[in-house]
Amino acid sequence: MSIDLRPLLDALGEDRVLVDPDRMAGYRWDRAADPDAGVPLAVVRAESTADVQVAIRFAAEHGIAVVPRGAGSGLSGGASAQDGCLVISTERMRRIDVDPVTRTAVAQPGLMNAEVKAAVAEHGLWYPPDPSSYEFCSIGGNAATNAGGLCCVKYGVTTDYVLGLEVVLADGTAVRLGGPRLKDVAGLSLTKLFIGSEGTLGIITEVTLRLLPAQKAPATLVATFTSLDDATQTVLDITGRMRPSMLEFMDRASINAVEDVTKMGLPREAQAMLVIQSDEPGEHAAAECALITSLCEANHALEVFSTDDPEEGEAFVVARRMAIPAVEQKGSLLLEDVGVPLPQLGALVRGIEQISRERDVLIPVIAHAGDGNTHPLILFDPADADMASRAQAAYGEVMSLAIRLGGTITGEHGVGRLKRPWLADYLGPDALALNQRIKNALDPQGLLNPGTLL
Amino acid sequence: MSIDLRPLLDALGEDRVLVDPDRMAGYRWDRAADPDAGVPLAVVRAESTADVQVAIRFAAEHGIAVVPRGAGSGLSGGASAQDGCLVISTERMRRIDVDPVTRTAVAQPGLMNAEVKAAVAEHGLWYPPDPSSYEFCSIGGNAATNAGGLCCVKYGVTTDYVLGLEVVLADGTAVRLGGPRLKDVAGLSLTKLFIGSEGTLGIITEVTLRLLPAQKAPATLVATFTSLDDATQTVLDITGRMRPSMLEFMDRASINAVEDVTKMGLPREAQAMLVIQSDEPGEHAAAECALITSLCEANHALEVFSTDDPEEGEAFVVARRMAIPAVEQKGSLLLEDVGVPLPQLGALVRGIEQISRERDVLIPVIAHAGDGNTHPLILFDPADADMASRAQAAYGEVMSLAIRLGGTITGEHGVGRLKRPWLADYLGPDALALNQRIKNALDPQGLLNPGTLL
Repeated sequence: MSIDLRPLLDALGEDRVLVDPDRMAGYRWDRAADPDAGVPLAVVRAESTADVQVAIRFAAEHGIAVVPRGAGSGLSGGASAQDGCLVISTERMRRIDVDPVTRTAVAQPGLMNAEVKAAVAEHGLWYPPDPSSYEFCSIGGNAATNAGGLCCVKYGVTTDYVLGLEVVLADGTAVRLGGPRLKDVAGLSLTKLFIGSEGTLGIITEVTLRLLPAQKAPATLVATFTSLDDATQTVLDITGRMRPSMLEFMDRASINAVEDVTKMGLPREAQAMLVIQSDEPGEHAAAECALITSLCEANHALEVFSTDDPEEGEAFVVARRMAIPAVEQKGSLLLEDVGVPLPQLGALVRGIEQISRERDVLIPVIAHAGDGNTHPLILFDPADADMASRAQAAYGEVMSLAIRLGGTITGEHGVGRLKRPWLADYLGPDALALNQRIKNALDPQGLLNPGTLL
Repeated sequence: MSIDLRPLLDALGEDRVLVDPDRMAGYRWDRAADPDAGVPLAVVRAESTADVQVAIRFAAEHGIAVVPRGAGSGLSGGASAQDGCLVISTERMRRIDVDPVTRTAVAQPGLMNAEVKAAVAEHGLWYPPDPSSYEFCSIGGNAATNAGGLCCVKYGVTTDYVLGLEVVLADGTAVRLGGPRLKDVAGLSLTKLFIGSEGTLGIITEVTLRLLPAQKAPATLVATFTSLDDATQTVLDITGRMRPSMLEFMDRASINAVEDVTKMGLPREAQAMLVIQSDEPGEHAAAECALITSLCEANHALEVFSTDDPEEGEAFVVARRMAIPAVEQKGSLLLEDVGVPLPQLGALVRGIEQISRERDVLIPVIAHAGDGNTHPLILFDPADADMASRAQAAYGEVMSLAIRLGGTITGEHGVGRLKRPWLADYLGPDALALNQRIKNALDPQGLLNPGTLL
């Protein structure tokens, strides 16, 4: 290769700049395991905003693509390396300062979501967003993808908790946007623009987070149904009149996959299971669960179980969180992330069943049902090329189905590289052009994460 | 004038296009009453998105500035007309469709905030954002300024409730962004970018709103203090551990102005009054007020009164809302809107007192204290040119003070025309340049609300 890395190595030191292909291997893929991931020119393990600036300026000078990387837990391939790119990893940027008086925290991007939660919990505070991957996804990646989770149905997504950012732009300038002010309308909403931009507009080097007082101990309810329609009607009956703090869905195939692993006695004949929590104060949580129980029963639930014992309830949340690893034991996964307006949830699940039959691949479905955000888990055997191809076809057909139902191709994982071919269909030409104009304005050379999102 | 309005009149009809200066007079000013407001070429009272497109295309063709206008209730001059501009008013676009199943509403921009609240309340639902002007500010203007209000301390601001937009861009293209999906990360966060853009990036022609179940009846607490520090310490003690649904502050001058009008028996000797609500369910509201009472007492409150009778509590909220009109009876107002991180609230109020003394103008202060968002009300006699000039100087000095304290020049009213000279100081050159790049990318001719915000 003709690019001299010496200036980069001199500026940052050899410990922060990996060039050995073996040592770089761990930085080529995220959890999407994109088979087309390339081999980077170098990996910069930045320790500061200044390091990120040095790396981006080097890349800009040489016209090298930059792939920003948090914890590499992304499911859409947004952190897949490209041949000859510079990967900039923020894994070493791990400082956090919690201010209990203003209920805010200033964190560097490399901390895990769980570490942020733990650091603020020491002050009796709570950072709500809770992707299922919270133990191994970074707060910087959460901001870059506007990550969701299970409590979002009541508490919103990452963007609702980010008051400010520091970002390094494509030309190496570091800019502060927003800050620890709960209301601030001075200037365009640029903090919000960078949230969910998947590393295409800049690299997030610091986040200022809004925190809440500790969540109250939730009551938990589990209901099973022999009819999908009964389950989806129950979801609508609940969300139309109250705000549960969790409202999760599992279909028959995912119930059985979890039961295979846990032997906890889940009813294998059920077509659907809902796991619901209420964190209303005191006895109001149990009262809300009692009302939800009556709604489940009115919709012919097979079984309803509720508990105000947090540990007993947590067992069912763990069962729900276990769905992906349990299904993963049966083969490789293409993990979908489509969302629809709530009344279309049943039509979406039914349509996925049909795609599953037509393409002859198993597609267990779990969902953050209260948000209309589903994760169809497309199973295939990578050694079976025909099946892998059918799974890939199903992956696209599920997105097209979601678009037809008025939904989105990604609710919380991001477009990344894998879903980019469907973005134009979803956005339409005018909104796509608008996206592109913003991208061109902020990254005219197209250096930042090219091929991701746009 | 040399521009032929005939094509515009032919396309939209004479009822929708005002050209008579007398009839246009009501469209020259917003509530900021900018003395420099100009005389428009014409006022288009759009009845549809298509009308807005026709008007913008006409303006673009002739290089005429466009000033978008909602209800004209803005306090920063963002809807001040300019000489020869085309005012596009959305006052006639007043349709709303509420979907109780998905808890969303699709509204045209011309509806008043109060009308949106009333329409969704018919379905047992609640649209939280509540600017003090809610009876005469439009939902389109709320979105364009990312308006706040009193309940934001617990429930957030306008951007937290807008799931989707239709906007007409500078070239007349109408684009749909987002929609009735609670989670959606496909593409850049453009919905959020347009919220708070003050008509500089496009004209909002439709909003899709997220709704909540009806708010529970609140308990209300009023506390007075003989020391400002005791009051601001109480604010910190409250926000650090709980989430009241309202946490308002009035200083001595605004207490007295309200007492002059209402004779409701407010203590004229108090240095500060807090009006606080809790909407926790059932008896938890009163319990939260009891805890707040103990915090007030620990901070040497002069008097604390609490009630779980919503009507009795509302009387104190009305007193707080009456502060601006009550102060306005004493002269003309320059209405400020600066915010600071919460621990700086006391320093901000004290600094404003000093500016008031130095400039010899009265500056009563009210605040959404829980957000750190204050409204210093700079009083002056417009017939006294020297005093008007001192008031104007104080207006700028209050913003500079807020910036020094780590705060913002506008928490919820917008930059508009009046605060634009201070935006560069607040943002700094890099963030300002970033704002300008976005503006240039979306409105290269600079037609949309020139001189506002940027």
